[in-house]
Amino acid sequence: MKTFSCRNIQFLLYEVLNAESLTQFENFNAHDRETFDMTLDTATEISEKIMLANYMDSDRKQPELENGHVKVHEGVHAFIKAYAESGLLAATFPLEWEGQQLPKTVNAAVEYICMCGHNSFIMFTDLAVGCSNLILNFGTDEQKRQFIPHLLSGKWGGTMCLTEPQAGSSLSDISTMATPQADGTYKINGQKIFISAGDQDYAENIIHLVLARIKGAPKGTKGISLFIVPKMALAPPLGAGGLNDVASIGIFHKMGQKATPALHLGFGENNECVGYLLGEAHKGLPQMFQIMNGARLGVGLTGISIASAAYYASLQYAHERTQGRRLNAKNAQNEPTAILNHPDVRRMLLTQKAVVEGALAFIFQCYDYMDLLKVSETIEDKTKYDALLELLTPVAKTYGAEMGIVSVNQGLQVLGGYGYTEDFPLEQMARDVRIMSIYEGTTGIQSQALLGRQVTRNNGLGLKLWREEVQKEVTEATNYELFTPYCNALTNALQRFEVVTNHLLGIAGQGDAEVFMADATLYMEFFGILNVAWQWLRMGQVAQKALLTQNVSEDDRVFYESKIQTMQFFYKYELSKIHYLADCLLNTEVLTVVGEREIII
Amino acid sequence: MKTFSCRNIQFLLYEVLNAESLTQFENFNAHDRETFDMTLDTATEISEKIMLANYMDSDRKQPELENGHVKVHEGVHAFIKAYAESGLLAATFPLEWEGQQLPKTVNAAVEYICMCGHNSFIMFTDLAVGCSNLILNFGTDEQKRQFIPHLLSGKWGGTMCLTEPQAGSSLSDISTMATPQADGTYKINGQKIFISAGDQDYAENIIHLVLARIKGAPKGTKGISLFIVPKMALAPPLGAGGLNDVASIGIFHKMGQKATPALHLGFGENNECVGYLLGEAHKGLPQMFQIMNGARLGVGLTGISIASAAYYASLQYAHERTQGRRLNAKNAQNEPTAILNHPDVRRMLLTQKAVVEGALAFIFQCYDYMDLLKVSETIEDKTKYDALLELLTPVAKTYGAEMGIVSVNQGLQVLGGYGYTEDFPLEQMARDVRIMSIYEGTTGIQSQALLGRQVTRNNGLGLKLWREEVQKEVTEATNYELFTPYCNALTNALQRFEVVTNHLLGIAGQGDAEVFMADATLYMEFFGILNVAWQWLRMGQVAQKALLTQNVSEDDRVFYESKIQTMQFFYKYELSKIHYLADCLLNTEVLTVVGEREIII
Repeated sequence: MKTFSCRNIQFLLYEVLNAESLTQFENFNAHDRETFDMTLDTATEISEKIMLANYMDSDRKQPELENGHVKVHEGVHAFIKAYAESGLLAATFPLEWEGQQLPKTVNAAVEYICMCGHNSFIMFTDLAVGCSNLILNFGTDEQKRQFIPHLLSGKWGGTMCLTEPQAGSSLSDISTMATPQADGTYKINGQKIFISAGDQDYAENIIHLVLARIKGAPKGTKGISLFIVPKMALAPPLGAGGLNDVASIGIFHKMGQKATPALHLGFGENNECVGYLLGEAHKGLPQMFQIMNGARLGVGLTGISIASAAYYASLQYAHERTQGRRLNAKNAQNEPTAILNHPDVRRMLLTQKAVVEGALAFIFQCYDYMDLLKVSETIEDKTKYDALLELLTPVAKTYGAEMGIVSVNQGLQVLGGYGYTEDFPLEQMARDVRIMSIYEGTTGIQSQALLGRQVTRNNGLGLKLWREEVQKEVTEATNYELFTPYCNALTNALQRFEVVTNHLLGIAGQGDAEVFMADATLYMEFFGILNVAWQWLRMGQVAQKALLTQNVSEDDRVFYESKIQTMQFFYKYELSKIHYLADCLLNTEVLTVVGEREIII
Repeated sequence: MKTFSCRNIQFLLYEVLNAESLTQFENFNAHDRETFDMTLDTATEISEKIMLANYMDSDRKQPELENGHVKVHEGVHAFIKAYAESGLLAATFPLEWEGQQLPKTVNAAVEYICMCGHNSFIMFTDLAVGCSNLILNFGTDEQKRQFIPHLLSGKWGGTMCLTEPQAGSSLSDISTMATPQADGTYKINGQKIFISAGDQDYAENIIHLVLARIKGAPKGTKGISLFIVPKMALAPPLGAGGLNDVASIGIFHKMGQKATPALHLGFGENNECVGYLLGEAHKGLPQMFQIMNGARLGVGLTGISIASAAYYASLQYAHERTQGRRLNAKNAQNEPTAILNHPDVRRMLLTQKAVVEGALAFIFQCYDYMDLLKVSETIEDKTKYDALLELLTPVAKTYGAEMGIVSVNQGLQVLGGYGYTEDFPLEQMARDVRIMSIYEGTTGIQSQALLGRQVTRNNGLGLKLWREEVQKEVTEATNYELFTPYCNALTNALQRFEVVTNHLLGIAGQGDAEVFMADATLYMEFFGILNVAWQWLRMGQVAQKALLTQNVSEDDRVFYESKIQTMQFFYKYELSKIHYLADCLLNTEVLTVVGEREIII
């Protein structure tokens, strides 16, 4: 079963983004196209043979909490082993930590390939990577030596413990306590919920990174610190049987992503939970957020990976399933036609293709900015890529999540009644993808971050730089007459976006944040569409340029023509939505602020 | 747990639709407001005590096929008993069949109340009602006597057997065969899939209504007949142990609506399956479609019932859950506020309220036309209500299904991470509602029926009459100055709809059905929004009129003000979408027709 297109990955990495050019920088100079391709091949093999092979079975046999312990699906064990041994787990890490210093852009392609096969197995390894990154950035030398090799070899697992029963979107209300001990460690007391991979049996130890408040710390976000809390004590004599005092209180049963258990954890139920401060006291939240940006991009990418698998599953079905006659040949005597030939089915397929390929280009673009930030040699470059990344991360997360959900549901719809049954993977994909608009900050929270912080950050520098990036593509595309209407449509949309932004900032200037933010989610939708329209114009003109060269193979010709037609599709059906969104955003009827009398009844 | 609003049902039945006026017709004259209200109270009790009480448990313990038989959840047994004994099962049937001749409009309110409690228990009784209706309309006197009393007492169950493995949307390809026997019966041979309630253990017998082709019948839709095929033989000696030759071959496991088993049935595996012709030979499809219209409205209503339950569940959560501070009072020292006070949460709640109440009004309006058709005394009236019903049925089905899905997902989103867990009913509601855009004809099929048949039927009579109905409300609403912008917006939208319709019919005139139909689904979305905008204007002005009268209680004042504000919300966020849809529909770039070269890759 095909779940992604190799050809499209090659197109994005080498024809659109020019990932090879990264290898000219010292940090990436051990690589070339060959090492990139070998890495992608390795990912493909793991995705198909281990991940996809276990996709449905690991959903049907979800982990349970038994006698305080969680056993995960056998496929998880096989996956971690293969992913670590192949070098993919440590791929983005420095050579000194047995990594390969693989560019994030290429690694994003690895993750995409893998998540097309199984979207929740990867959470185990992503968490180990996230923990390692935080320890690498903020840990002492001893902490690095103690944890990173075990995490990156797959021997130990990791978690991120942020959410508490009373503190989800509002992390400033975290109440888990850390009490300093004479030996420099801390005793941790509190409860955390929704902890993905919070317990499992594949690893010898689990490294929980826990947000907590040191006794006496100020209220709010500025009093939160970050702690390393291992499941198994690091040195005796801590707790019985080598266990630190971390208890699995409960397991959440979820709508989807069932292969990854979500735990309710209790820290210090016997007041014996030992934690180690990571980085600076009271700086836990900004430290954590350094990796949360990557995590947010990852959620957007997961949404699109599921949508990719759903697209190819529904495309295959549409090729194979015959039903009815073509509308222009409606005669019962004719043989039934493949449903791919019905315009409405084609519309559903093209919607998926436009979303999947457009969003993938956008998300890869963000990872490319991450690599360029890493190798930036001037302050100006650093500032530029940082500004672009900060601006675009919540958008890439949200577009991938929200449109991933829409796209997967179109895939299910293509299969009709069969799509609703467990005989096909679509219903599971629809369940799996549904969480993406919630993970790592809901769409509402991301939208507030975009409009309330990123748009005005640094005097609007991010937005200014972004406009330049988009303008570059528009200018490039005007070289081809075919692209004139699309350049005009995008330019027009950019202008409306500016009008809307200024209108909203005008409201903000009047000081009513609730009115200002009332339609932040629509603003997010607007900006998301603009970004993907930008990427489609870019892909379109790259394809057009390629078509005009000599010696294009027949396969490539179809590939490039399909790119251009899908761009046209996106502009017709998706970009045109921005006028509706602009109308709403400019409409001064604000109906969602709290009034004197409650009207939501 | 509240799942619907009694006050809103009263408003729709008595203030908007004037259901009491139906009692002036002979057919309904045994009723008055008191009998209506008693019936609604009975439904409320069953919904809360039996249906809602079993909602989550019956999802967790889905029926399985064991040794050829299916046992359904114990709640189903209790529900059927209560629903039949209370008189609700037979409520719409004539007095001579122990019914109450309850208007369909009031019965729709009964169904809505019940489906808010449990959306798939009702399928068992709806199927018994559907079978009874078909037998009442087309059966011989003997067949009526033989089947109807058992079906309407809940002693026997019913099914509709349409879909076959190779014939879903395309019923013309049905291949189940019926071979005439000397005694006037038929031997049935074939397989049917997705048969809801296809086997169960609450009833002594199951009456399958089966579409099949009499040997030698012509190909296509005109060669299909309808047969009564009981699970248990009606008279010995047919098959061993009293069983007719109907086998449960398999059971489908579904994403949701798990309480109702969907069976794969084999008829005549031993060539011993006896069937009885119902109605005329070769007229099976039009006969079946007589009740399919009701079934389609029922699916739209189910979507909205689930959305109603989801709305009230998320509203309650938003009242109780505190998180963060109000945007205008962002100080960590303040106590956290109920999330109801966040504008984005309010937007999600109001979206749900606007969809649920608007669609409910629209669907009730259709049932009202059904009642008016029933009591029509002139040909003109009969033609009118028939034309309106035919035009609006696919729209009410599709709007209820598609926007039901959107609405439930907004409800889940309000709960954040908790919404994704089985601790709350939202994830189940999201799974349950997902089938509605597929049942009884997918959205694509409904849209083709609307644009390809209903819009042009009878020289566009339905659309003409519909415009008059809408215009009536616009004229009424112009009495109130507050409504001027909304009247203008609706008038403007109606004009655009006419432009779009004429544009599309122009394309149809050129003879390319695939180009004509390419965006039928967008046309459907456009028309659906218009219909609900019409209903909101109507509800708004009824509320406004009531507010201007003396002695409005405080509760009623809030209720009416909420209606007007939700109307405004709908016009701002939903009606404004029609400009986007019109732009797409008028855009002549048709990208979904089959080209020389396959570009969907």
